[in-house]
Amino acid sequence: MSYGRYKPNTPHKNRDSERPLVGTDTSGEIIYGRNSVMEALKAGRSINKIHFCGEMSGSLGEIIALAKEQNVVVVKQSKQKLDEICGNVNHQGVAAYVAAADYAEVDDILAFAAGKGEDPFVIILDEIQDAGNLGAIIRTADAVGAHGIIIPKRRAVPLTGAVAKASSGAVSYVKVARVPSIVSEIEDLKKKGLWIIGTAADGKTSFYNADLTGPVAIVIGNEGAGMGRLVAEKCDFTVSIPMAGDVSSLNASVAAGVVLYEAFKQRNKK
Amino acid sequence: MSYGRYKPNTPHKNRDSERPLVGTDTSGEIIYGRNSVMEALKAGRSINKIHFCGEMSGSLGEIIALAKEQNVVVVKQSKQKLDEICGNVNHQGVAAYVAAADYAEVDDILAFAAGKGEDPFVIILDEIQDAGNLGAIIRTADAVGAHGIIIPKRRAVPLTGAVAKASSGAVSYVKVARVPSIVSEIEDLKKKGLWIIGTAADGKTSFYNADLTGPVAIVIGNEGAGMGRLVAEKCDFTVSIPMAGDVSSLNASVAAGVVLYEAFKQRNKK
Repeated sequence: MSYGRYKPNTPHKNRDSERPLVGTDTSGEIIYGRNSVMEALKAGRSINKIHFCGEMSGSLGEIIALAKEQNVVVVKQSKQKLDEICGNVNHQGVAAYVAAADYAEVDDILAFAAGKGEDPFVIILDEIQDAGNLGAIIRTADAVGAHGIIIPKRRAVPLTGAVAKASSGAVSYVKVARVPSIVSEIEDLKKKGLWIIGTAADGKTSFYNADLTGPVAIVIGNEGAGMGRLVAEKCDFTVSIPMAGDVSSLNASVAAGVVLYEAFKQRNKK
Repeated sequence: MSYGRYKPNTPHKNRDSERPLVGTDTSGEIIYGRNSVMEALKAGRSINKIHFCGEMSGSLGEIIALAKEQNVVVVKQSKQKLDEICGNVNHQGVAAYVAAADYAEVDDILAFAAGKGEDPFVIILDEIQDAGNLGAIIRTADAVGAHGIIIPKRRAVPLTGAVAKASSGAVSYVKVARVPSIVSEIEDLKKKGLWIIGTAADGKTSFYNADLTGPVAIVIGNEGAGMGRLVAEKCDFTVSIPMAGDVSSLNASVAAGVVLYEAFKQRNKK
């Protein structure tokens, strides 16, 4: 399991050295200070989110501009909030949440499949919120030989330390790509020949009666609301997981596991 | 979702009334004070554990004796620990963790199957530690129409508030029985005609090539160690979940979901 170059809970020792200033919180490693955040961006480290306070002028303006250029999510906060996030250190108005593993690009995922001579087997997560669920799904993705996972940049849990832990190390092996819009990404994947298979309570076909072979992306919805309406409309077809009771529902990572294992079985038989 | 008669985080108002004194912690509702705990035991409320401090004499001795008679786990603690558990109230040397739902007996589970005219479909959890996993498995049990779950009294997470929350309310519908020994319980179930099916990384048959119909109990192992050796030896046969990678493993609730859904599919086809 990799948390990047620094151990969580490392005390801040070398304030004046060349090392980036590093803090931690429950959602992963935090880098703060203008030089440190700028260097992390220039080095191409995967960053989940940047928080800043005050005016976007001078070096802070440059940081925000570079972050936006790299499509990093940037959020303006109050100074109090930033103090709280960083633990009352001199953060110079900026802090970056570093991802627990580097993000891949969607093209990396497709190239990985092509390199293995396999039809793409991709998992799309539509706004999974819970770190334990994302970690468990990454673990399952590894077990079923999926080529990668696509998650949205906003309204979803990114690759945090808690996700890395729940993934039991699989976060280091599974390619995870973050995209600005799941809907646009689905359109792109369709153009590249993938079948988009949604999962929903009202899906017309039971997952084990559907053909889950060939180039596919399987979409798993949010814990509470399932797939978003726009995402659901883009799917080529939707499968359901039959349930015995009237009040039944499944945990999102369990639902993903059940459908992904059926795909794994069908793809291996083929 | 039921947390018993009292809401979590209810402030302690009526110290001198007839109502039991109630506190809460992350693992569920706590009742303290000698009369309150005695009344809870006499009323047959499901209790996960009783903590006490000091000498087992007088009314405290009677409480401990009654608890042991009811096979409730009893643990001696320091006064400091008990103060901490109860939040520095006058606990009179005893506190009881009340279960988030009432436990069933194994016979209730079998009678429930018989009443529906179905072959028993039972889940045995061998020392599941994580509340999220137990909750997710209870939810899956409801979805696949299993008749009940058997968990051990010790070294396993009981029905806490966190489990109830993770079960998304299913804890109120699924029968969960707690037994002193999983090994002895397996022997009893075999005498009653159930097939005991273990799950393990080195199982000889893939779960989807095994017959999971008829009267069965499916055993899911602990998150880290899998099934215990003695439990594994008692199984009639063991199934494995195939995995693509060499380093792969699954989250316990995902593994349970995958195998239980195969059983559900096979049993409904039959």
